Amino acid sequence: MSEFKPVRGMRDFLPEQAEMLRSVEGKARRVAELYGYKEIVTPVVEPYDLLSAKAGEEVKSRMFLFKDLGGRDVALRPEFTASVARLVATTLRNEPKPLRLFCVGSIYRYDEPQRGRYREFWQSNYELMGSNRPEADAEVLMLSDALMHQAGLKKHAFKIGHIGVLRGILSQERVDEKIQNAVMQLMDKKQYDDAVALLEKSEIPRRCTSLIQKLVVIRGTSVLEVADRIKTLVEDYEQSVEAVENLKEVLGLVSESGCKIDLTVEAGFARGLEYYTGMIFEINIPDLDIAFGGGGRYNRLIELYGGEPTPAVGVAHGLDRIMLGLEMHKTPERSEERKTVMVIPTKDELSGQALRVAQLLRMAGIPAELEIMRRRMVKALEVADKRKTTFAVIVGEKELGEGAVVIRNLSRREQDTIRIERMAEYLKCHT
Amino acid sequence: MSEFKPVRGMRDFLPEQAEMLRSVEGKARRVAELYGYKEIVTPVVEPYDLLSAKAGEEVKSRMFLFKDLGGRDVALRPEFTASVARLVATTLRNEPKPLRLFCVGSIYRYDEPQRGRYREFWQSNYELMGSNRPEADAEVLMLSDALMHQAGLKKHAFKIGHIGVLRGILSQERVDEKIQNAVMQLMDKKQYDDAVALLEKSEIPRRCTSLIQKLVVIRGTSVLEVADRIKTLVEDYEQSVEAVENLKEVLGLVSESGCKIDLTVEAGFARGLEYYTGMIFEINIPDLDIAFGGGGRYNRLIELYGGEPTPAVGVAHGLDRIMLGLEMHKTPERSEERKTVMVIPTKDELSGQALRVAQLLRMAGIPAELEIMRRRMVKALEVADKRKTTFAVIVGEKELGEGAVVIRNLSRREQDTIRIERMAEYLKCHT
Repeated sequence: MSEFKPVRGMRDFLPEQAEMLRSVEGKARRVAELYGYKEIVTPVVEPYDLLSAKAGEEVKSRMFLFKDLGGRDVALRPEFTASVARLVATTLRNEPKPLRLFCVGSIYRYDEPQRGRYREFWQSNYELMGSNRPEADAEVLMLSDALMHQAGLKKHAFKIGHIGVLRGILSQERVDEKIQNAVMQLMDKKQYDDAVALLEKSEIPRRCTSLIQKLVVIRGTSVLEVADRIKTLVEDYEQSVEAVENLKEVLGLVSESGCKIDLTVEAGFARGLEYYTGMIFEINIPDLDIAFGGGGRYNRLIELYGGEPTPAVGVAHGLDRIMLGLEMHKTPERSEERKTVMVIPTKDELSGQALRVAQLLRMAGIPAELEIMRRRMVKALEVADKRKTTFAVIVGEKELGEGAVVIRNLSRREQDTIRIERMAEYLKCHT
Repeated sequence: MSEFKPVRGMRDFLPEQAEMLRSVEGKARRVAELYGYKEIVTPVVEPYDLLSAKAGEEVKSRMFLFKDLGGRDVALRPEFTASVARLVATTLRNEPKPLRLFCVGSIYRYDEPQRGRYREFWQSNYELMGSNRPEADAEVLMLSDALMHQAGLKKHAFKIGHIGVLRGILSQERVDEKIQNAVMQLMDKKQYDDAVALLEKSEIPRRCTSLIQKLVVIRGTSVLEVADRIKTLVEDYEQSVEAVENLKEVLGLVSESGCKIDLTVEAGFARGLEYYTGMIFEINIPDLDIAFGGGGRYNRLIELYGGEPTPAVGVAHGLDRIMLGLEMHKTPERSEERKTVMVIPTKDELSGQALRVAQLLRMAGIPAELEIMRRRMVKALEVADKRKTTFAVIVGEKELGEGAVVIRNLSRREQDTIRIERMAEYLKCHT
């Protein structure tokens, strides 16, 4: 057997999986259309400078980085946002706001492969540029929920927070931004003790670290209640209070819209990427430790790429993660049997006529495979049966002389002689 | 303005182009379905060993080659066939034949950028594995023609040849295979004189080079006539005669199928890739010097990748080339106006209700954008009008109290008050 295999961490999608991937991709595209997001397609290979501009050390250290034949430092995209920001800061800079943009495709990160984590994976990405209003944040939550529902996930839930709660405290306490970023990354990994230890080293008041320790355990499903608990704790930090108010407003709008999303608000929730400035969220299935998507608000990003100051909110969903979720909660209904048709000539000399019959079926919108191995009829029917083909369309000399073919239902072992012009209609109406 | 731009040779597809790309991709997928080809998705990054195994010097020298963080020699795929062959030689080796496989995605070659040629480009790829019958060759020609028609190209034509005509002569004259390959590459570039010069150096009989010089000018649209002219010339070379017979049979089947493809047979037609063993073809628009696709038979390929001997025929189409062809022959019919809906609350406090109305529309399958900038009504309507929005759905307090909204046709400047439960129906029926 051949020893070739995919590069470590990469994988093939065989027909059944490929169909599922394309189906989830199609649903992501449909959600984009329903919410008014226009699709753009950006390159897989981008300048390293662009991709690393705001990526954070961890993402940078895991990029597929190389020099192209012209000596340029390039890398495979580890996310879509940098490419979208590039476009918004250049080619699309004069487009009226808000700008709703959608992309879908493959993404590359050199992570340690494990279940549900590959080095090439698939994302759908939605960016809403130009609005600082809570409706924008609400919209991104709602479309994420719509995608999960359309894809067929049932038990997904949102974890929601606001980066401004923690940042508000740390900024007012004048904690250096680099340390803030490191703290957020530790928080993202739920290494709260390490985060606090790091803060203690940077000499912030003890009352402040103890406040953070109290904050990180606050979580709950009642937005109003959790918001009140947080506000009581952070009342001395103006920015933190504003953050809580903003989060309440966003989630109030979602609730008013009639969209019933299953959510938990977590005061200590942080996300690894450094560019978030407001509401942040992740989508999980509670009993699985896999995120299906995540996003939030990043108001300074476009500036960082040299564009006009542009408030923005966005989300990325892991399409192969969604597939994994679907596979784990597989419902039997899924595998609807598809009608398949195999066209078989009774002898070699009728191959051209069989091609013609197959072509007529396809022109009528019916998928048709041609028996192409020149097997004998008995053998060909056997093979068709083994492949669970629904119908064999048998092209024989006698019937052809009368402008007809024989259509055989392989599971029922019944057959009819049908005129060629009625063939498509017959196949569409029979099962 | 920001100075970030795509890597040289790469490009972005803005919404209009992205829509066209996805549309052509969807048509390629539909053709695959109609002809019974199952889609697979393979990685963009593959082992260099795999991609270079049978690639030819030219393709090899233009690969995006690098080491991943684990020190593996990897490259971005310069075509799909190697990946498909890998699968057929390994994971899919026990699948019953014939195996019809389809892929679509981005491809990478470090060519000099020019009109219609980028370093990242898009292909659809169809492989029919396991049949050595002329029906298989005919099927690949027919599905290529179907794709061009479905995509909307009108003046495309096929250039068809058979690698066996020239190879038959060279093999019988015992020309070294490396030299044969070099000759084929020169022929592919129409450098016939250089090809002949190279042959003269390898000391083959003069009568043979003069035969080749006569062959390369033979071309015509009548299959039978061209075939006869070739056969008269190559009658001393058994393999070449067989090649002509095979080509006649393939094209006879296509014609019998009722598929009217516009074709020219060229006796001196060669293709750059070394692995072809039989019929070869390319699709062009006669007055443009751009190939929209090409393929042919390669019976030894799967063996070369360590699999079972498997006759095979395949084709790749350039999706962005097809787009270029469509743009150049643009017909005015294309831009059918799409109905668009913008939901606008009369005041900020109604944002949640506006979100609800938008959500109801989307659930009824109607794309709806929310006015998300909190613009005043007059301004919001102005912007909607400028964006050529068809309808504004105005969410006001008074109408809402009666369970209704105002729907305004922006081009006609007419409006109606419509109950919320009738809103979707109204929008579907009015233009």
